[in-house]
Amino acid sequence: MDSTDMAYDVFSRHCPSRGTLEHVTGRWGALTLGALHDGTFRFNELRRRVDGVSEKMLSQTLHALERDGLVRRDAQPTNPPRVDYQLTPLGREIAERLLTLIRFVESRQDDVLRARECYDATRGGR
Amino acid sequence: MDSTDMAYDVFSRHCPSRGTLEHVTGRWGALTLGALHDGTFRFNELRRRVDGVSEKMLSQTLHALERDGLVRRDAQPTNPPRVDYQLTPLGREIAERLLTLIRFVESRQDDVLRARECYDATRGGR
Repeated sequence: MDSTDMAYDVFSRHCPSRGTLEHVTGRWGALTLGALHDGTFRFNELRRRVDGVSEKMLSQTLHALERDGLVRRDAQPTNPPRVDYQLTPLGREIAERLLTLIRFVESRQDDVLRARECYDATRGGR
Repeated sequence: MDSTDMAYDVFSRHCPSRGTLEHVTGRWGALTLGALHDGTFRFNELRRRVDGVSEKMLSQTLHALERDGLVRRDAQPTNPPRVDYQLTPLGREIAERLLTLIRFVESRQDDVLRARECYDATRGGR
C-alpha cells in the first residue's frame, strides 16, 4: 500500500500519527510550538518563554520537532555560534491550530476551576 | 485580585491553565476527549476506542476530565451498574478544537514521515 493511500488514525495504537500528535501536544512540545508562533528565537530566549522547561527537555523537544519537519534550526557560523529556531510552514499551520485550543482553554479556565471546586465539595476529593 | 480579572497564560509555569491544558492534550486525555466527541460510551467501549490505554490510565484520565468539568459520568442504578461517559458542553467545545488539530496532524503525517527520513539521512540519526 502506498503511504499516500493510508488513512492515518491516532486512535489506533500503532499508527505513526499518534507519535506525531504526542510531539505536538506533549507537555513541552505544545508550549514550544506555541512560543515559536511569535517569531524566531534563540535557545535561551525560548527557554525563558517556555517558563519552567529544563535545558535538557527543551533541547530534546526541539530535536523531535525539527526531525518531524515542524521547526527549523539555523546555526550561524559566528563566534560564539548563534543558533536560531523558527517554525517551518507546516509547523506554523500546526501551531495555529494548537493556539486556537490553548487560547480557548485559557479563556474557560474560570469554569474549570469552578467545576473542580464543585467536584471536590460533592465527592470529598475522591 | 478577583479571578475573573486574571489573565491566564499557559506559558507561565504557575498558571492553573497549564494543568488544564495538560489534561486536555496529555497522551490519553486528548484521545479520550476525541473519542467522546462521537457520543456516549461505557467504560469498556471507550477503552476499545482509545486503543492501547490501560484500565488504570483510562480511569485516571476520566476522573481528571470529570473534575475539570469536561466529562460527565452517569451511573445507572441497575444491576450490574451501568456507567456512561459523555462530554459536557465545555468538553465538547474543547474536543472540537482538539479534533481540528488531530485531523490536521493525520492529514500531514506523510510530510512528517518524509521530514524524518530526510533528517535521519542527513544527520545520521543524531
